Amino acid sequence: MKTSPNGGARPLVRAHLSLARTQTPAQAPATSRVERALTDAVERMTATGCPPTLAAALRYSVFPGGSRLRPTLCLAVARACGDIHPTATDAAAAALELLHCASLVHDDLPAFDDSPLRRGRPSVHAAFGEAIAVLSGDALLIGAFEALALGADAAPGVLAPLTRVLARAAGSPFGMCSGQAWESEDDVDLARYHRAKTASMFEAATMAGALSAGANPEAWRELGRAIGEAYQVADDIRDRVGAAGLGKPLGRDEAKDRPSAVRAFGLEDARRLLGQHAARAAASIPDCAGREELVERIAQMLRAFS
Amino acid sequence: MKTSPNGGARPLVRAHLSLARTQTPAQAPATSRVERALTDAVERMTATGCPPTLAAALRYSVFPGGSRLRPTLCLAVARACGDIHPTATDAAAAALELLHCASLVHDDLPAFDDSPLRRGRPSVHAAFGEAIAVLSGDALLIGAFEALALGADAAPGVLAPLTRVLARAAGSPFGMCSGQAWESEDDVDLARYHRAKTASMFEAATMAGALSAGANPEAWRELGRAIGEAYQVADDIRDRVGAAGLGKPLGRDEAKDRPSAVRAFGLEDARRLLGQHAARAAASIPDCAGREELVERIAQMLRAFS
Repeated sequence: MKTSPNGGARPLVRAHLSLARTQTPAQAPATSRVERALTDAVERMTATGCPPTLAAALRYSVFPGGSRLRPTLCLAVARACGDIHPTATDAAAAALELLHCASLVHDDLPAFDDSPLRRGRPSVHAAFGEAIAVLSGDALLIGAFEALALGADAAPGVLAPLTRVLARAAGSPFGMCSGQAWESEDDVDLARYHRAKTASMFEAATMAGALSAGANPEAWRELGRAIGEAYQVADDIRDRVGAAGLGKPLGRDEAKDRPSAVRAFGLEDARRLLGQHAARAAASIPDCAGREELVERIAQMLRAFS
Repeated sequence: MKTSPNGGARPLVRAHLSLARTQTPAQAPATSRVERALTDAVERMTATGCPPTLAAALRYSVFPGGSRLRPTLCLAVARACGDIHPTATDAAAAALELLHCASLVHDDLPAFDDSPLRRGRPSVHAAFGEAIAVLSGDALLIGAFEALALGADAAPGVLAPLTRVLARAAGSPFGMCSGQAWESEDDVDLARYHRAKTASMFEAATMAGALSAGANPEAWRELGRAIGEAYQVADDIRDRVGAAGLGKPLGRDEAKDRPSAVRAFGLEDARRLLGQHAARAAASIPDCAGREELVERIAQMLRAFS
């Protein structure tokens, strides 16, 4: 069979299948709640009966991870709010990261960024072929909502709002899919593009953390948005000047004619804008039981952007 | 911007954008509950703020529809079981069709079937380019779970099981994504491939109909599976011999070296197998208040396959 035209990727596929046989997801680094929740979700998606190449590609798409910023933010907010439904919190954190991983796999495809590298190694389509990359992204999107439904059993009232918040952040008209789709339009507003493509998922992270802890999600929207906007400007700056361990090619925004804060305002003004978003984030942390610790964690996160 | 390499598709995109401006989703044929539920979902996904090309592609992916078999089956089962939560039933029906439409859009991509036609007109990637086709499929997958979460508000207890049933049918290891991924493997079991690729969604249709009506979904699994297996064999036969209004090229299974009941058993035995699956379906309709009407509807559905 093998309908994928990407025959050249097969030796790499074989190498990853062999890796998949010797290293189970349970042996992946799972020291934190986020890694455990992700390991559970990926084990479920790759259980016996899964086509082996898809299973290997799903593991490869999620492990080893990047910075896990969105689920870490979700957990930090939930903890600050009391974390009364930790299973729902873990599920929301895993779902956020699965949606994010899906977007990376699809964004790297030839029809988008055509990126041969991600996190310093071949991107999923480079390693497994385009067909398996499309299906891996699809399975990760679906697996995210399945993880939510499984994890929210102990707190059934939060499943509907959690699903709505995550779907809005990931889909259309205001989520990641729309953000990416703005790249096919002639007339694009930079703030709207960045908000949909990046800030929406950070907004969902703080709101989901609040929701799973029984707090009011609206009070946490601005914090997530400001962190997400800071992150996107920082990403635009890194695309121009580079950073240690970036693991992907530089200058893609220019090469792909993508709007970017650096292209729109220049490097110095982009750095100033990053500072403004970071200050907005720090100033918008709502009152909550664990505010002091949360202030410190968010300051750490923002420092790591610059 | 326009990062899509499919520059040749632009005139068609323009035509569809112009159509999108003159024909709102509310004007699409919306005579049935299924069409109304789908219209609501697509209007939400394409609301003001959505990138116009993505909005046009989303409408094009869902309207006008094909046979709407999966949502029709879901509604028929729910009605036979009393349909006590019609909003949840409508949401489940819409979600089933959105997941199905997403799979068609992605299956037509060059990395899969590379099909220029679907339902007698250009496929989504042929009309809008590959990038927008990938994003449309993604947004439809996400929008399906959002529709469920919105529709299950009146019956919060059914959202978690409905989400699990639909995610299992669509994702990995046993759903549509896995069915498609078997096409990249050397060693494939035909029954397992067909069950994942096709029967899983018919199983989900009967089970979701039962769930939203408060009935036991497990009692309805076998009916959905048998209908789905009959449908797949009928599809394999149509791929060989053709049918009026098929709207897609013939002989794709052979050309793409895909497993098929006709290729495995020959045309006559495939026709016999179709009859066996149809008989299994008719024999497996559980006892319920509206059984008599349901028996007739399912007989109609099965007759239309052959």
